[in-house]
Amino acid sequence: MYVGKSVSAGRKPLIVLTMGDPCGVGPEICVKAAANPDVRDSCRLVLAGDKVVLKRAEDVTKMSLVYDTLHSPADVGAWASDAGGREASLLDCSACAEAPEYGRACAAGGAAAYKYLINAIDMAISGTVSAIATAPLNKAALQMAGIRKPGHTEILAEKTGIDDFALMLYSSRMSLAFVTCHVALRDVPGMLTCERIFKVTGLLRDALLRTLGREPRLCMLGLNPHAGEGGVFGGEEQEHIASAVRDAVERGWNVEGPVPPDAAFTPKALRKYDGHVAMYHDQGHIPFKMVSFHDGVNVTLGLPIIRTSVAHGTAFDIAGKGTADESSLTAAILLASRLSGIRS
Amino acid sequence: MYVGKSVSAGRKPLIVLTMGDPCGVGPEICVKAAANPDVRDSCRLVLAGDKVVLKRAEDVTKMSLVYDTLHSPADVGAWASDAGGREASLLDCSACAEAPEYGRACAAGGAAAYKYLINAIDMAISGTVSAIATAPLNKAALQMAGIRKPGHTEILAEKTGIDDFALMLYSSRMSLAFVTCHVALRDVPGMLTCERIFKVTGLLRDALLRTLGREPRLCMLGLNPHAGEGGVFGGEEQEHIASAVRDAVERGWNVEGPVPPDAAFTPKALRKYDGHVAMYHDQGHIPFKMVSFHDGVNVTLGLPIIRTSVAHGTAFDIAGKGTADESSLTAAILLASRLSGIRS
Repeated sequence: MYVGKSVSAGRKPLIVLTMGDPCGVGPEICVKAAANPDVRDSCRLVLAGDKVVLKRAEDVTKMSLVYDTLHSPADVGAWASDAGGREASLLDCSACAEAPEYGRACAAGGAAAYKYLINAIDMAISGTVSAIATAPLNKAALQMAGIRKPGHTEILAEKTGIDDFALMLYSSRMSLAFVTCHVALRDVPGMLTCERIFKVTGLLRDALLRTLGREPRLCMLGLNPHAGEGGVFGGEEQEHIASAVRDAVERGWNVEGPVPPDAAFTPKALRKYDGHVAMYHDQGHIPFKMVSFHDGVNVTLGLPIIRTSVAHGTAFDIAGKGTADESSLTAAILLASRLSGIRS
Repeated sequence: MYVGKSVSAGRKPLIVLTMGDPCGVGPEICVKAAANPDVRDSCRLVLAGDKVVLKRAEDVTKMSLVYDTLHSPADVGAWASDAGGREASLLDCSACAEAPEYGRACAAGGAAAYKYLINAIDMAISGTVSAIATAPLNKAALQMAGIRKPGHTEILAEKTGIDDFALMLYSSRMSLAFVTCHVALRDVPGMLTCERIFKVTGLLRDALLRTLGREPRLCMLGLNPHAGEGGVFGGEEQEHIASAVRDAVERGWNVEGPVPPDAAFTPKALRKYDGHVAMYHDQGHIPFKMVSFHDGVNVTLGLPIIRTSVAHGTAFDIAGKGTADESSLTAAILLASRLSGIRS
């Protein structure tokens, strides 16, 4: 990538970028994001993908990348320490002999996306790379390939042996971490505990501390209307949330709450807080998608490795047209670089 | 009001504006809103309040109003049909011999606010006025005055004999009606029925039909993340919400859903829909307060009378300074005029 430019390994973090499902927009947004000047400044990239898939993505985007082609994670380690190498490389995972058809879920696409991800995780666990940024994969395609996992997060959790993670949504305007996420609303109240809320708060604080370089100002959301209005509309604030706030404040963290949910995202509140702890999926996803629809990033907090992701899916309907917006993936790579703690 | 100007009753709707708790910002925002040119164009106003309270509000806002002073609802009827009357009047409810102290809840303030409201409701029920717009009252002050009601809506429901109403939030950018509102989140799933959802949808459609003058495009929200994703994250969409959508569509209404909640308020979705049916308080209040914090209006749907309200409280901390923003009350009066179905 980055035509003709060779650099020393320098102090830039090495980020592995998985190309996602080859039938979706993943490969083409990888090409666009890899060419972004801010991305070039912030890190060196290893694309985990297939040469034929990357070639097709270059064709549809009418962009040409310069990169070294590698064939194993061990090659990546050697390449990373080679001062003569290019700024970017492709780890050719040899998942596809030819690129599968754009625009629909298929077993070949699911199997390829899975193989790219597994290679990336192995490199992150071994310390070959600083972080993983992922393009989208497709749940149905994974199933067709016999992979019984709903998505990236569950695969990451299994491979790293972690079951106590949390989703973070990140953008320059709003950041949130979730106490519960993909569960029915009726199950949410019973899943709230002081311990879980405190843990998620700590994970969010740690991530924002690294991105901001200072103590973040956190907003702890209530669960109920008006944060329960003193117990009139529900007791979870008094039973679980307020004690998590007390524990956090005792540690010296800057946490306010429980805040009435509808007062926590007003223009004034968004200026006041660096991050929010949300009790359930839509409490955070509704405001986040209102202000950061295109450039939002998903982060999995609590893993032993750093992992960021686009906040959208494979978008089969526009795959292969070269028109997909790469903003979210670009932001995911930049955040992975910042969380790696090494600034260019 | 409207210095020196006398008009015939004409075709403008007659709106009663309650001054709210005299210790809060209500009276001063009434003075400011009453002087708004759009308000003057859209309706004739009857302020339900006290002469001493209005005088003090004129002093703190440094504004002088011209109005006829009336002493009973019967006087209002006569005044409304008198072509020689001014554009505005004060129904002096004689609740306060002197204006109670600004900035804190007290029995005198609560009793006065209650008396203004009761006079207004009586005039609406009798047909003397077309609609009620209300300035804020205070729950604690009501309690001090021995009124065991949490707010306007419950008083209106009791006086009109209705127990099946719905809250609507309205602004030029977003409108919503609520299937459930001031209840604990854990109680929401059990309160959803196809009948209730359908009824609230019909109330919202009717209100928007009147304000837009055409069939509104409505978004029916799901309850769960991703609207349940086919039952994986909860079954309320399939059990109750989808059938309410079907019933609505069979009537010829323009209703889509159940829509994943986080996809329903993106910039694109807000351009697509005129109104949203929300399943619970924060599902609608979070996005509404993000985009319409200052000029939002509360409407009580399902009553036999039209009633709109400011979407904020008494703001005791700034009462009497003349600085309170009247945008929400102005919007409430203008909406009351439009819902009255008579345009100036």
